Amino acid sequence: MNRIIKTISVLVMFSILIGAAYAQFAKPEDAIKYRKSVMFIISQHFGRMGAMVKGKVAYNQEAFANNAAVIEKVSVLPWEAFLTPGSDKGQTTMKSSVLKNSADFTALAQNFEMEVAKLSAAAKSGDFDAAKDRFGAVAQSCKACHGKTRK
Amino acid sequence: MNRIIKTISVLVMFSILIGAAYAQFAKPEDAIKYRKSVMFIISQHFGRMGAMVKGKVAYNQEAFANNAAVIEKVSVLPWEAFLTPGSDKGQTTMKSSVLKNSADFTALAQNFEMEVAKLSAAAKSGDFDAAKDRFGAVAQSCKACHGKTRK
Repeated sequence: MNRIIKTISVLVMFSILIGAAYAQFAKPEDAIKYRKSVMFIISQHFGRMGAMVKGKVAYNQEAFANNAAVIEKVSVLPWEAFLTPGSDKGQTTMKSSVLKNSADFTALAQNFEMEVAKLSAAAKSGDFDAAKDRFGAVAQSCKACHGKTRK
Repeated sequence: MNRIIKTISVLVMFSILIGAAYAQFAKPEDAIKYRKSVMFIISQHFGRMGAMVKGKVAYNQEAFANNAAVIEKVSVLPWEAFLTPGSDKGQTTMKSSVLKNSADFTALAQNFEMEVAKLSAAAKSGDFDAAKDRFGAVAQSCKACHGKTRK
């Protein structure tokens, strides 16, 4: 089991490094603005789903699944921006520990991506009760990462 | 030909209206921040492609195609945010005419989406000369829209 986890970690780290090779943010400020942009998009779509989960807005399966699909599409984008050197300074609440312990951050990011994929699948299936559970699991994964990485 | 254009326009307007039904921006400021977020993401990836087109960075087909694929993924997202009532006021350079003549705006947005899809296909094919032409066509479609819709 530990071996599997290690293998996954190595693969994820490798994919992050590949991502970093494509990144080329001209300056740390661009990386900060980029990850904030992705997170804002995610928060808007997650908020729309939350309104349905909480019964504030009538449940509409197509809308619910579309919002989940958008989050799934953009959930892969922001991580390299968090790992950009120097992006712990300036207009950001990111702790410097993210850059120092990038493997820990990558594990949290990967967990979020996995939970989002499960939420999107549940939303597509039309089983609203299952989707509500998955929505809660995604919210927990947001919280777990924010709790450890924000100043 | 006019009939085809009219039919496409009606279909696009219909899809925009469907989109608007899902939108639910809590306030115009959110719509402004949302579309700026998407546009910033697009500009970053387009800039990375531009560096290769201009020869400032060595051409790497995988990176070039990945950047195009990200732009294609997010190119469908921002339009409903531009058509949110009241979003011509505040921290924005958008002209009020976008809200008044939404069909004109939608045609420009649709043109951008089409050009981006063609660029992404060319980037995937690996024909860099063709991709450069498509890159130029996307740049033109950016310019055409910005020229008409920005204050």
